[in-house]
Amino acid sequence: MPEGTLSFPNEPILRIEGPIIQTQLLETFVLNAMNYPTLIASKTARICIAAEGDPVLEFGLRRAQGPDGGIIGARAAYIGGCTGTSNVMAGKMFNIPVKGTHAHSWVMSFPSEVEAFRAYAKVYPDNCVFLADTYDTLKSGVPNAIKVFNELKENGHNVRAAIRMDSGDLARLSKAAHKMFKEAGFPDPLIVGSNELSEELIAAMKMQGAKINVWGVGTHLITSQDCPSLGGVYKLVSVEKQGQWVPRIKISSNLEKATDPGRKKVLRYYNSSGHPMGDVLYLNDENTPDFEGDIKAVHRRHLYHSETLSGAIREESLLIKMMKSGHRLYPAPALKDIRRNVQQKISQLPEEMKRLVNPEIYTVVLSPSLAKLKRDLLNKENSIG
Amino acid sequence: MPEGTLSFPNEPILRIEGPIIQTQLLETFVLNAMNYPTLIASKTARICIAAEGDPVLEFGLRRAQGPDGGIIGARAAYIGGCTGTSNVMAGKMFNIPVKGTHAHSWVMSFPSEVEAFRAYAKVYPDNCVFLADTYDTLKSGVPNAIKVFNELKENGHNVRAAIRMDSGDLARLSKAAHKMFKEAGFPDPLIVGSNELSEELIAAMKMQGAKINVWGVGTHLITSQDCPSLGGVYKLVSVEKQGQWVPRIKISSNLEKATDPGRKKVLRYYNSSGHPMGDVLYLNDENTPDFEGDIKAVHRRHLYHSETLSGAIREESLLIKMMKSGHRLYPAPALKDIRRNVQQKISQLPEEMKRLVNPEIYTVVLSPSLAKLKRDLLNKENSIG
Repeated sequence: MPEGTLSFPNEPILRIEGPIIQTQLLETFVLNAMNYPTLIASKTARICIAAEGDPVLEFGLRRAQGPDGGIIGARAAYIGGCTGTSNVMAGKMFNIPVKGTHAHSWVMSFPSEVEAFRAYAKVYPDNCVFLADTYDTLKSGVPNAIKVFNELKENGHNVRAAIRMDSGDLARLSKAAHKMFKEAGFPDPLIVGSNELSEELIAAMKMQGAKINVWGVGTHLITSQDCPSLGGVYKLVSVEKQGQWVPRIKISSNLEKATDPGRKKVLRYYNSSGHPMGDVLYLNDENTPDFEGDIKAVHRRHLYHSETLSGAIREESLLIKMMKSGHRLYPAPALKDIRRNVQQKISQLPEEMKRLVNPEIYTVVLSPSLAKLKRDLLNKENSIG
Repeated sequence: MPEGTLSFPNEPILRIEGPIIQTQLLETFVLNAMNYPTLIASKTARICIAAEGDPVLEFGLRRAQGPDGGIIGARAAYIGGCTGTSNVMAGKMFNIPVKGTHAHSWVMSFPSEVEAFRAYAKVYPDNCVFLADTYDTLKSGVPNAIKVFNELKENGHNVRAAIRMDSGDLARLSKAAHKMFKEAGFPDPLIVGSNELSEELIAAMKMQGAKINVWGVGTHLITSQDCPSLGGVYKLVSVEKQGQWVPRIKISSNLEKATDPGRKKVLRYYNSSGHPMGDVLYLNDENTPDFEGDIKAVHRRHLYHSETLSGAIREESLLIKMMKSGHRLYPAPALKDIRRNVQQKISQLPEEMKRLVNPEIYTVVLSPSLAKLKRDLLNKENSIG
């Protein structure tokens, strides 16, 4: 085995340098640790975009892929934009607000629905949310809820009527329930909706005027149902030999999977609207251009297609030194700070990149020197016998 | 809260009786613990059906939803039919055979592919599998593999040529590689295929005569990519009041989600070909009919549709008492025995139920008494005000 150190920065996310055995042992751990949380935070961001500012709660533990799928997923969901989780353990571990209602079995364990609601109201007189669909949402659940909220009011409690509906057409039912509450003297009911919700369904129901104020999202969020894996990879890009970094490329029989060779650095450019315009991958040792001028770059796969970024007013270096020789250099941020940072980054993206369907794709391009290196290595390796 | 004990046997899988608080605390744990492993074992069974007896290896950890998603998933994959896993920790914990090849980075860390293969052959002279697609499978990987296998042969090793291909069209490449090995004096090469494999893709490539002997399946298996959640539920079906079990039903606004009420037992009937014909849910206290006669039953949702099971030669009671008062009564079987039992159950299923596309659905029906109870409760609860 050659002496040497490796550098693994194929994507502008993580760059690891070290002895080959150590860096190789990290591969699967790093991918497992990054792919799933990134996936769930991204999925949650989509769901929150669909909810247009309404609170979204993470309700997925029973369908999560393993116990720590649920726990790690709840943490990632909070980072991605959820305001709470029904996962009590995740709440305890990470100080995430824990939110939920009672179960259908609560109602079913009582002789009647109204008795179940009364018993629940006795425990939580000032903030009870009744699950209204055990028998029939509009004929039974909502009338019984109104009855018990009226009793609470008569007993002097300052009541905001609140229910959860977990079945049926939530758009139709929420509008009807809202009207019933309003006519009963509760003008601003809180209606939590759940039941196989996805970002597409939430967006469609919002368009139809659903009167849901809070969205409880389980399976689709915690498994990222329509796209349950993120294809992050960890690739060797350079080997050190006698103090020289020698770039390496993996080509494979799918040319679009060819790696970007060499040790790299990444700059992000912002325009005057505060939007990020794109990321440019540079070779580690090359000089980067003045961000105020035209920044020449090349498409990552179409290596003869030039691109130019113009009008940047600011650049940001994306690599931060996190660890050295096993010691952490960058202190772990608090979860709420991670969440705030992610929410800020999402808010900076142009609207077109946040469209739920066929969004505009963010630009990631190569510097001309890196593109030339990639072309040269592709030409050379392709002729290996 | 009413005094009482609950029974939770809505599906013929698990029935739990106990004080309401204890049984309620179990809900999310039980669902999390059962849904995901059942999903992955089922997905693996489908993949193994597609592979028609070829070994299938679990390769998914880097894309698993959390670390124990990968570990629990590897165990479930072994139960479902995989013959090994690349997950070293799961192998160590559960004694599952650990299988894999070297990484692309192994090849890339050497000045040339042939040097990488030679170094690997030095360590594993009698069972090396070369990853052949780092640069170009047919122009570089296979010729270099043949070169090194010839060197091993000359040094007196008893060689079976073996490669893995992880990109490109595996059907075309495997047929071409097989031919190259054969012409070079290796008539029976072992070719491992991997790269975004699914049961559909494996079945399609088998139809086209792909010369793959071993299938490494990652993302699609470990996340059950096209169906990443199993909708198992845990529902209250009966409450004990003064020594009497009072059945309960949950209706909701999706009638197909209405639960089967009451404490139940489940019998499975087998025909003379050894195939299971169907499962019948009975009320716990009712007498079950003679299995040799016609067994009358009712559809689970179409409650006025009678069904008859005829020609059973054997019945099997599916409920086994596993625990009592916190003590395990049924010893945990060894993993290999669980695997053998599952594989036997799969082999008993008629072929039509194992079709990958639009399979025949297994029959699960209600006894006439249970169907009557369900109808009565639906009629009654529906009129609750």
